[in-house]
Amino acid sequence: MKAGPSQEEIRRHNLGTLLRHVHLGGSTSRAVLAERMGLNRSTILGLVSELASVGLVREELPRDTGRAGRPSLVVRPESDRAYVLAFDICADRLAAARIGLGGVFLDRREISWPRDDLRADEVADALVGLSGKLQAGARPGTCCVGVGAGVRGLVRHPDGLVHSAPSVGWADEDFGAGLTRRLGLGLPVAVENEANLGALAEHLRGAGTGSRDMVYLHGDIGIGGGVITGDRLLTGDRGYGGEIGHMLVNPQDGRPCDCGARGCLEAEAGERALLEAAGRDGSAAGRDAVRAVVEAADRGDVGARAALHRVGDWLGVGVAGLVNILNPRTVVFGGTLRDVYLGSAAQIRSRINRHALPASREQLRLRVGELGDDAVLVGAAESAFSGMLSGPLEALARTLP
Amino acid sequence: MKAGPSQEEIRRHNLGTLLRHVHLGGSTSRAVLAERMGLNRSTILGLVSELASVGLVREELPRDTGRAGRPSLVVRPESDRAYVLAFDICADRLAAARIGLGGVFLDRREISWPRDDLRADEVADALVGLSGKLQAGARPGTCCVGVGAGVRGLVRHPDGLVHSAPSVGWADEDFGAGLTRRLGLGLPVAVENEANLGALAEHLRGAGTGSRDMVYLHGDIGIGGGVITGDRLLTGDRGYGGEIGHMLVNPQDGRPCDCGARGCLEAEAGERALLEAAGRDGSAAGRDAVRAVVEAADRGDVGARAALHRVGDWLGVGVAGLVNILNPRTVVFGGTLRDVYLGSAAQIRSRINRHALPASREQLRLRVGELGDDAVLVGAAESAFSGMLSGPLEALARTLP
Repeated sequence: MKAGPSQEEIRRHNLGTLLRHVHLGGSTSRAVLAERMGLNRSTILGLVSELASVGLVREELPRDTGRAGRPSLVVRPESDRAYVLAFDICADRLAAARIGLGGVFLDRREISWPRDDLRADEVADALVGLSGKLQAGARPGTCCVGVGAGVRGLVRHPDGLVHSAPSVGWADEDFGAGLTRRLGLGLPVAVENEANLGALAEHLRGAGTGSRDMVYLHGDIGIGGGVITGDRLLTGDRGYGGEIGHMLVNPQDGRPCDCGARGCLEAEAGERALLEAAGRDGSAAGRDAVRAVVEAADRGDVGARAALHRVGDWLGVGVAGLVNILNPRTVVFGGTLRDVYLGSAAQIRSRINRHALPASREQLRLRVGELGDDAVLVGAAESAFSGMLSGPLEALARTLP
Repeated sequence: MKAGPSQEEIRRHNLGTLLRHVHLGGSTSRAVLAERMGLNRSTILGLVSELASVGLVREELPRDTGRAGRPSLVVRPESDRAYVLAFDICADRLAAARIGLGGVFLDRREISWPRDDLRADEVADALVGLSGKLQAGARPGTCCVGVGAGVRGLVRHPDGLVHSAPSVGWADEDFGAGLTRRLGLGLPVAVENEANLGALAEHLRGAGTGSRDMVYLHGDIGIGGGVITGDRLLTGDRGYGGEIGHMLVNPQDGRPCDCGARGCLEAEAGERALLEAAGRDGSAAGRDAVRAVVEAADRGDVGARAALHRVGDWLGVGVAGLVNILNPRTVVFGGTLRDVYLGSAAQIRSRINRHALPASREQLRLRVGELGDDAVLVGAAESAFSGMLSGPLEALARTLP
């Protein structure tokens, strides 16, 4: 429990908060900013001027307001002045983006990668290569203020060590430190579990906007999860919170899971469970295979329908448990679970109705992710922007040559 | 996202924070306070003087320090200057306490109550009667700065409406407003779910001290739960978070639960499940009956051992799920689950080892509650003190005649 901030810290906080408002909310008038931040207009004017003087925001006439009379100026973030680098490390590809203030994708690159060889140093080298291309496109005077990366694995807090990432074969890998060194930008790379970043992204810019309490479920090879509670990412004691894929849903005759246990949500409702239940042969995998099952069910294929029914049952059991424990406002299904949800929504909802407390589910919304494959990059970018949004001028000062 | 605080708000925050340090941590030297709060010693001196001038703290020589030389003064909270009223509404009794700054029980009263009649207005009247007796013992010049009450039911946030409390037969009961009016103290009664208060209490003053992430499980007629994540109580969207008793653990052939669902943790591992599994007749109930089973198992009673084994299995399944979702540092077993845990710890731990991710459980501590039957009262008191700890002088000013 610390003492309150100094005058200098308050000024920094206010600049960061104003910037965060326009970064997340887009163009906003000074009057609205004054109201939302609880400050008077002259203070807002001072903050806007300071941010404008370093090029982080601009005041301009709003696009057509549809109202008569002279419109007020709005403050908008300058997406071209400060950007972050965001990385998404998948089992079969590396994605990288340069994302500007306001969440604008300025550039995006991707390379595919064989599934069986993802040594951390080689990944870091490949990302350095992608970064070079991304940064080459930045116009002079713009600067990089943060770097974030999503990894499919358990990431320890607060140091970002990758405890284990089975899909790429890493264990106790200090990937962030290695990448930081190789990039040489003087900016520490913020490494985070990919589903936690997806949760953050959907919370700030997607289907969970406005929900202070949200659960994100991400289907991929496995099932990842992220929990937002009271507008904050639930990390738990060591950063391993939100491992919803390994929530035990079938304790009695559960299927074996890659984690070594049995009956985990991932084992019962993950990609492999769906494809096996639908009678697909062992070589079918990935999003297209999942989509094919959902489409076959739509066309009336009995086996595909039964498979979705079964998987929807287990997803509903899992979500019902989460609803009773976390009382979220919104549950978001992303990745391949987006398709699975669309094919088994009634089943999922029916299980929730059977097993979740009425009070806890009466305001519950089930949604599909809005950010698609970009969710992890968007989350990594928000994580990378957090330093700048705590102290915009200091962040610029650190990075200018 | 609000702007930073004013100078006045910072002063208030600092006074409150200093008071919170000694309220929770007991007597503390000014040097230690300066270090913990990140303030210089002269600022600490000013804050201590201000709090001392209104009688909330006192500086005194520490008890024997065991060191040579002149000891430094320590700041200690004045338990006799400001107090709160704390209530615990059980199905069969009402407990009330007057608790002073520092968490000191100044007075405690209890009345038993028949199980089948707990109308909210009658409960409120009874609590007003108990409050009168508690306050009559307060010396002149002391004042009541808050009132908190724990209810066995779902309590809506932020307004405190009791959505449902089956054990006392309440539904949509605005108990807090009624009690506030009847008490006539000009202080709104903070109503909260009893297990959430137990979690808060064990987190601040019991077995969960020092754990930023903690789960509390409370055994009573049912199983209640409370979750602390990042040092904050997890409330969820509407205040119904932490309903761990209704976490689904046995989706396939689960026992019926009072909530209407089947296979909830409460149905599989609650008091009734234990007593039935141990072959106790239907009239056995309550803590003594639970203790009798644990004692019989200790003496080698095969049926009692099997019952504890079974219940421990389900508790382990539930806790494993919580560990994967929440990654807590500590799980605390309170109420009758204290006894159950002591009788089935090996079983619980073994299930956790089988079903929880190694990374998530490697630092996990399982503990029994340290506050016993007082946990709810302690939590209600902490909830009631929160206003004063946000602005000590304002809280005093509001209550002085």
